[in-house]
Amino acid sequence: MKVHGALLSTASQRVFACLYEKELDFEFVPIDMRTGGHKKEPFISLNPFGQVPAFEDGDLKLFESRAINLYIAHAYAEKGNQLIYSDGKKMAIVSTWMEVEAHQFDPVASSLCWELAIKPMLGMTTDATVVDEKAAKLGQVLDVYEARLAQSKYLGGDDFTLVDLHHLPNIQLLMGTQVKKLFDSHPHVNAWCADILARPAWLKVLAMQANN
Amino acid sequence: MKVHGALLSTASQRVFACLYEKELDFEFVPIDMRTGGHKKEPFISLNPFGQVPAFEDGDLKLFESRAINLYIAHAYAEKGNQLIYSDGKKMAIVSTWMEVEAHQFDPVASSLCWELAIKPMLGMTTDATVVDEKAAKLGQVLDVYEARLAQSKYLGGDDFTLVDLHHLPNIQLLMGTQVKKLFDSHPHVNAWCADILARPAWLKVLAMQANN
Repeated sequence: MKVHGALLSTASQRVFACLYEKELDFEFVPIDMRTGGHKKEPFISLNPFGQVPAFEDGDLKLFESRAINLYIAHAYAEKGNQLIYSDGKKMAIVSTWMEVEAHQFDPVASSLCWELAIKPMLGMTTDATVVDEKAAKLGQVLDVYEARLAQSKYLGGDDFTLVDLHHLPNIQLLMGTQVKKLFDSHPHVNAWCADILARPAWLKVLAMQANN
Repeated sequence: MKVHGALLSTASQRVFACLYEKELDFEFVPIDMRTGGHKKEPFISLNPFGQVPAFEDGDLKLFESRAINLYIAHAYAEKGNQLIYSDGKKMAIVSTWMEVEAHQFDPVASSLCWELAIKPMLGMTTDATVVDEKAAKLGQVLDVYEARLAQSKYLGGDDFTLVDLHHLPNIQLLMGTQVKKLFDSHPHVNAWCADILARPAWLKVLAMQANN
């Protein structure tokens, strides 16, 4: 298996985390985004939208991190940690909360990561108006998460699944910013973050960055 | 099965189309969005994010249209038209293009629907700058679709699947606006639109609106 991506790309990190959870060997093929490697061949033959990561498993070629992870979790169900349910109804709840991550959490979290973590790294100026607006929305999302996590150990059910995993890269970045206080003020969310951020598979993703 | 939603909501229409494709009986529970019915009880107990549709199948309660449709397609695989593949690799390609619809097509298409179809209906003024920006992005997405559909009859593979179905509500609205020309100028995209818009299940969704 090959992952074509970038160590600092949150979408690539999602796939690395999944592969480590499943204890699968893979080759990391770095794409140099600073020189536009994701916008030209050979990468755009793997993803015509020019976004990392892309993935190969033998002759199967995929892109979109969440679709890649669903494939890995199903195709290698017997390996490593289970990240999905075989029960149809339990899996439907997981699918619902995977959509919540993609449509409710990720748009605001990605925007806050850009303003509060990436822009300062690149020497660009953070837009305080955007931060205020997105932080308010993130607070509303975390209110729903707090109610959910008061009833369910993980967002998708009683077990850690792809739902929780897909949140990891954004949460890791946001924990180093001023919006950490939003997580801190939601006790069940805070405990959930501490739990999932400490998973050995996620620590391996962080080690990939540190060793580079 | 019950669908709590609104006839003019594109997300609700996605679920209706899926249920008609699968030839399943369901009860439509209208939510009056003009009076904020989606933001208060009993609806927000079904979807704490306050967005239509929500779905019930016996004691299973779901929200997020794409997750609902995945559940229906899997749980009722033997009914009506097949909308997914049982083969894992073929289904992984379907998952990839379902993510493309959700992350590449829907954000620009929804924005154009709002500016060009919904705002005029509500007597609001269309923002030409937003239209220009989003139309340019839609053109880029359709360029990728054109290349894909030159090689594959449908976006997810040789067969009509949830991928194509999920595009229907936005495409239906956009065909009545100035951006129809973007579809017209991509011949494979145009043929694909004509094909999927003519499906009996989709015509039943349009009839639901017309009969109301």
